[in-house]
Amino acid sequence: MIRLPKATIERIFRQGAGDMRVAQDAKDLVFDFVPVMAEYLAESAKTILDSANRKTLNTPQVEAVAEILRVEGVEDYDGEEFGRMTMRRILKRAGIERVASDALDYYNKLVCRVIQELGELSAAKAKEDDRKTIQYEDVEKVIVSTMPKGEEFLEEI
Amino acid sequence: MIRLPKATIERIFRQGAGDMRVAQDAKDLVFDFVPVMAEYLAESAKTILDSANRKTLNTPQVEAVAEILRVEGVEDYDGEEFGRMTMRRILKRAGIERVASDALDYYNKLVCRVIQELGELSAAKAKEDDRKTIQYEDVEKVIVSTMPKGEEFLEEI
Repeated sequence: MIRLPKATIERIFRQGAGDMRVAQDAKDLVFDFVPVMAEYLAESAKTILDSANRKTLNTPQVEAVAEILRVEGVEDYDGEEFGRMTMRRILKRAGIERVASDALDYYNKLVCRVIQELGELSAAKAKEDDRKTIQYEDVEKVIVSTMPKGEEFLEEI
Repeated sequence: MIRLPKATIERIFRQGAGDMRVAQDAKDLVFDFVPVMAEYLAESAKTILDSANRKTLNTPQVEAVAEILRVEGVEDYDGEEFGRMTMRRILKRAGIERVASDALDYYNKLVCRVIQELGELSAAKAKEDDRKTIQYEDVEKVIVSTMPKGEEFLEEI
């Protein structure tokens, strides 16, 4: 698993969560979830690439991942992003040797947007309960309901 | 939405659920879920096809859908299947004009396997609660946790 900087993850999550407080164990769950999610997105892109018998990842394949997983607003994401070298390493680890520059940027934005959305949806769960603090359970529920086979995801974290 | 025969859906679901009883409202939820799920799988296949700039659906693209959604055991599915004409109509409605014969069969098995697995996982939820009857909530929880953006799925049903 390739590590991603916690400070960046936290800032992106907070972009989504707004002015909500975040419990420490909830943050830890987000930190643990992100590399697994980023790897899963990279593997999904690789699966699509293989199904077309291609070797170079282009933006349409990453867009297809976003569309199948129903992640919206990737194109419009304009917050903080991860380092391009780190993103490239995650894709490489998934077996993607060649990546077009715009596809790398799109993948980066996709990972960021999923984190931002996790913040938004976790904040919404806390608000449903009239809380001002995002708890572990909020993040857990959002992961289960947003990812395919979400319960398996939790077990892999 | 293209209708699928309820009797077939129920038999496939029961293949997964084993000897558990199924409450009527739980069955109704399964009946409502299946056409939405089949349409979503067809649209996902279309997305992958578009990302490769291709027109004819072949098995690898449908396999890619199964892999991204983490549906296992599609190849080995050997229970009842839906009519090929109905499956073709669902794919056509998703914008897929040409379908290879083996891709159509694989798509058919994929839809069936998702229903069978829904039966398995719903039965497991009921057993966790020491019940012999699958309730609405069991099916609901499994849909939320298996499909991407599972809560949106429920709203579309």
